Amino acid sequence: SVNPDLANERQTASFSVEKLTVWLDGGEERTRIRRAVVEAIESDPVFSRENQYFQTQNERYEAAVRKAVHLQKKMHEMGWTENGPEFKYIYRALSGDVAFLLHRIFMRSISVLGSDKQIAKWIPLAAQYQLIGSYAQTELGHGTYLQGLETTAVFDITTQEFILNTPKISAVKWWPGDMGRSATHTVVFAQLYVHGKCYGMHPFIVQIRSLQDHSLCPGIIAGDIGPKMNFEHIDNGYLMLQNVRVPRENMLNGFCEVQPDGTYIRRGSQQINYFTMTTVRISLISDEVVIPLMKACTIAIRYSVVRRQSKLKPGEEEAKILDYQTQQDKLLPQLAAAYAFHFINDYLQELLDRGYREIQRKNFDTLPELHAFSSGFKAMVTQYCTSAVEICLRACGGHGYSLLSGLPSLYTKILASCIYEGENTILLLQTARFLIKCFTAASTGQPVPPSVTYLAVGEAGKCPAKNKLDFLCPDIYTKAYQHMAVRLISSTAAKLQDLIQSGVKKYDAWNQCTVQLAQAAKAHCHYITVKNFAATVEKLQTKAGIQKIMKHLCDLFALHGIFSNAGVFLHDGYISGAQMDMVTASYLDLLAVIRKDAVPLVDAFDFTDKTLNSALGSYDGQVYQRLYEWAQKSPTNKQISPAYEKYLKPLLHNMLSKL
Amino acid sequence: SVNPDLANERQTASFSVEKLTVWLDGGEERTRIRRAVVEAIESDPVFSRENQYFQTQNERYEAAVRKAVHLQKKMHEMGWTENGPEFKYIYRALSGDVAFLLHRIFMRSISVLGSDKQIAKWIPLAAQYQLIGSYAQTELGHGTYLQGLETTAVFDITTQEFILNTPKISAVKWWPGDMGRSATHTVVFAQLYVHGKCYGMHPFIVQIRSLQDHSLCPGIIAGDIGPKMNFEHIDNGYLMLQNVRVPRENMLNGFCEVQPDGTYIRRGSQQINYFTMTTVRISLISDEVVIPLMKACTIAIRYSVVRRQSKLKPGEEEAKILDYQTQQDKLLPQLAAAYAFHFINDYLQELLDRGYREIQRKNFDTLPELHAFSSGFKAMVTQYCTSAVEICLRACGGHGYSLLSGLPSLYTKILASCIYEGENTILLLQTARFLIKCFTAASTGQPVPPSVTYLAVGEAGKCPAKNKLDFLCPDIYTKAYQHMAVRLISSTAAKLQDLIQSGVKKYDAWNQCTVQLAQAAKAHCHYITVKNFAATVEKLQTKAGIQKIMKHLCDLFALHGIFSNAGVFLHDGYISGAQMDMVTASYLDLLAVIRKDAVPLVDAFDFTDKTLNSALGSYDGQVYQRLYEWAQKSPTNKQISPAYEKYLKPLLHNMLSKL
Repeated sequence: SVNPDLANERQTASFSVEKLTVWLDGGEERTRIRRAVVEAIESDPVFSRENQYFQTQNERYEAAVRKAVHLQKKMHEMGWTENGPEFKYIYRALSGDVAFLLHRIFMRSISVLGSDKQIAKWIPLAAQYQLIGSYAQTELGHGTYLQGLETTAVFDITTQEFILNTPKISAVKWWPGDMGRSATHTVVFAQLYVHGKCYGMHPFIVQIRSLQDHSLCPGIIAGDIGPKMNFEHIDNGYLMLQNVRVPRENMLNGFCEVQPDGTYIRRGSQQINYFTMTTVRISLISDEVVIPLMKACTIAIRYSVVRRQSKLKPGEEEAKILDYQTQQDKLLPQLAAAYAFHFINDYLQELLDRGYREIQRKNFDTLPELHAFSSGFKAMVTQYCTSAVEICLRACGGHGYSLLSGLPSLYTKILASCIYEGENTILLLQTARFLIKCFTAASTGQPVPPSVTYLAVGEAGKCPAKNKLDFLCPDIYTKAYQHMAVRLISSTAAKLQDLIQSGVKKYDAWNQCTVQLAQAAKAHCHYITVKNFAATVEKLQTKAGIQKIMKHLCDLFALHGIFSNAGVFLHDGYISGAQMDMVTASYLDLLAVIRKDAVPLVDAFDFTDKTLNSALGSYDGQVYQRLYEWAQKSPTNKQISPAYEKYLKPLLHNMLSKL
Repeated sequence: SVNPDLANERQTASFSVEKLTVWLDGGEERTRIRRAVVEAIESDPVFSRENQYFQTQNERYEAAVRKAVHLQKKMHEMGWTENGPEFKYIYRALSGDVAFLLHRIFMRSISVLGSDKQIAKWIPLAAQYQLIGSYAQTELGHGTYLQGLETTAVFDITTQEFILNTPKISAVKWWPGDMGRSATHTVVFAQLYVHGKCYGMHPFIVQIRSLQDHSLCPGIIAGDIGPKMNFEHIDNGYLMLQNVRVPRENMLNGFCEVQPDGTYIRRGSQQINYFTMTTVRISLISDEVVIPLMKACTIAIRYSVVRRQSKLKPGEEEAKILDYQTQQDKLLPQLAAAYAFHFINDYLQELLDRGYREIQRKNFDTLPELHAFSSGFKAMVTQYCTSAVEICLRACGGHGYSLLSGLPSLYTKILASCIYEGENTILLLQTARFLIKCFTAASTGQPVPPSVTYLAVGEAGKCPAKNKLDFLCPDIYTKAYQHMAVRLISSTAAKLQDLIQSGVKKYDAWNQCTVQLAQAAKAHCHYITVKNFAATVEKLQTKAGIQKIMKHLCDLFALHGIFSNAGVFLHDGYISGAQMDMVTASYLDLLAVIRKDAVPLVDAFDFTDKTLNSALGSYDGQVYQRLYEWAQKSPTNKQISPAYEKYLKPLLHNMLSKL
């Protein structure tokens, strides 16, 4: 039975939860497919995550491999294919708790960087799992700065082989997934040397383990990098290479080649490489960032209407904690952000699709914009959502701290998204470089990509809002964000210019502006997110019930952003102190409004209990009972600890002196 | 040998590291004692934390009990006593990785709440470990709101016993440390009923496990609550009571008593209870919050001068990441905060000592102030330092995410400090209540405690700074903080007043102001922290070498606070936009100045490598070598995973169809 406190919340929804779910999915057909995939995965005990919180790293790894292997069978059984509409829901239904993700990257890198011949040779082997691939790029000493990688590949003209080496400890490959214990092959990125000349980073296919007995190949030292904050199921590994020889054909040569005589030939554009990174950065936003935040919101908000604590009104029963303004202030902006970033993901996908179509026509003009957007949004969204999940965790008090709440693992996993696929600060600075360039172009009347034409609008002005209701007008707050973004970008551009004109070297000047540049890049992404949310609500006109609540969420997201970043809006007086008080008042009013629909708004994300895997977040709200029953299954309750016989018994039997 | 990049950093220190260490310790004698304790603990293999990151929850628990028992022997050997000067360094040297901490709380609660007779009976038993105690307050359904606890204790006049019960699932005791697997006794907080009348929360000593064979006593259901984000070494437990009878003498009756005929007598002041909570909240700031932040800073800053990545200047070697302004912006404010909160801890200790002297003279006047300060600072410092540790972790990229960096466990542990000993938001609101009361009193000319007399200063005015150097004047920025705190408190008081006058019920009005009240309470604590830092630097006059760098840190802490909370300073124009640019400029300048002393400043915290337990943070900076060697010891490298024979081999041998 559903906890009555939670049941009540569902009776007063201002909109149809099912309709919202369908809209979020992108149509009824997709909802149907998604649910069918989830049902198929969750009804299969091999995919169960029930004991996950009790398992060691070794157990998690074994389970992830078991699931990955079983998934092949399942897909065959169900008739799912890699190109089918079900595919994207499979990973989601597994909550990413599966091995061989890097095997996929191995295949993609061959497809993108390999020649037709290489693709024809390796892809079928990999697709049939006649080998297990990994992708060895990052080293102990180098991550995002790829040019600094130190692994070497020297061409030996006499044997027509490349000799790969790890010349020093910092060059050890470190972090690649699936490499610690599973992979038989990997793509190694190494500095290519021919006749003593360095040609920079190139990818090489290297076998690391025997296909027969899985023993390490000659010259290979590899293993697992040990415990991490999360990703226990993945065997992130290390790899040292000692005079490992691979044939000339093993350098991926879709874009360059070393000929038998050692002649180095580069062909075609390498710009497409950027496009791959761009694709990855955008694709991770949904599965690795927005969905975890939606889960965290679901858990925290459901719990907050079941948990009663202290009294709002003397003499009454204890209040649901979601009725406290402070709890609303913690959770509802995160809920609004989950929606905002779901929509920005759609926006980025569309940008990507458009870009891809251009690239197919050999037009690479959109690449800089795409690269800047994917970098900036990857950084901004991962950072925002990581903080948001942490807020959800903390908002659940002690029970949120229990692994059984599901929140700690959501947090420790999403945190990694700030680091992988490009360190966030570096990514923001890449976006900033693009913005500064566009700003300079726009100021001198040159053309800029459509998404940044706003930089040309040099309006000073003031915010025209007269009362707190004016701040519920998307035009008012979108303009405020736009003004703020322009100001931060233009003032940093001016500082940069000033420094350079005063004689500071260009690279020093850049470094001296980086704190502000990163801030400006975030401001740009924040502005686009607000603008896109408002536009999405606008387009919803026909779906009145949903539009109203989406409008509230959009307002909340925007006003919370102004409220909590007040300084950048007040700085030049675009928003006055009195207007900031109106923003605050409207923001606080909205909390009380949205609070009424909070549970329906998370129900619409349509997560099953098994997906949430949380004692606090399940649909029926039987929080305490579930915590209690689940704890019984913990290994800490499965055996009498040897600590009793060894230490406690002697102590209690007063044998202190004999210890 | 020390990594030369790290060694270089130590040659240019602007001050004597040893002198700073001694000053932070509070004198040479203390430094000597601290080092002796650390040496004695770390040279004893029983206390080793070397394998901690590889251990399961069961293993961690066993190790913590082993250490706790061994510690008794060690203390005896070394001649250390609970009242000796060494004692406070022991827990620190163990990094808290030891059992029986709640046993200590058990003893303290008896000492504070028990009668002389009860103290005489139980304390010697506990001190001799003839029993192991715990402290059962929190329930599944109630934490900080103690009045809501649901466990019952009904006085049975016929047998002169109390009958304790867990009437429903939400009343199950949940979280008490040492209770899951170790404790034989506990202090249970329950609602006292005599003749059907409820007298509220009272503490009862209850035996839960046999002293003979450790089996659960009749009517007791107890166990471990399972996996948590950290504290694996502690057996946080649950407890259900089913008609458990304890004799009348087991109610702790220092302040109240149930007489044989059922007459309930209350005697003495219960205010002293608040004092206990106050003491605990203040005492945790140093060991559980500031020291972990100091460790995180040490790890992240040492790593940041060893890690080289990308180039600042074309053609040069790769730059130390601490030379990037963005990395300085991440780490140096956290370093300044560690110092700021070390000093605020001294301030609070002094306040506490003064208060205690008054209480001993039966003067309870300082209690409200003490309670408000301990609540507010507990909340503000734990929140600030938790974020700071997270920033340190993220600033170390992928390697920070490895447990071997030491940062994940520092983070997951410090995070709990935001929750235990009072949920932070609730604590801030208690501080706010005190501030609003004082503000109202001050406005009407009534006397207020010395720490809040500033609330009477209703100056409007503007910040007088004319250029960026003016913002290096402590008087300028301290005044700005003061003005900001007064404004936030007074404007919220006004809003509260307005709401009430417009007819809103008092409790509703309060709830509608809580977001702003919490913000005001934080502003107050931030102001006091800045003021106290400035005063501490001021007093340092004679120690010139140290004073200069402390002054820089104080400036940095203050200006970073203004820079990153710009809105509250700009709001009423006290600081103008142009002045905010000066703040930003001064702040960024300071980063470059303090960067030069960053390593000496963390060296001065004087943590041994064993204390840090970090592959990234050790004194010699041999980061990559240590990560590599440490990973070899991981259980993931100790055995061939059964996953190979079970899943990988069949897969690779192309038996997919037979699976």
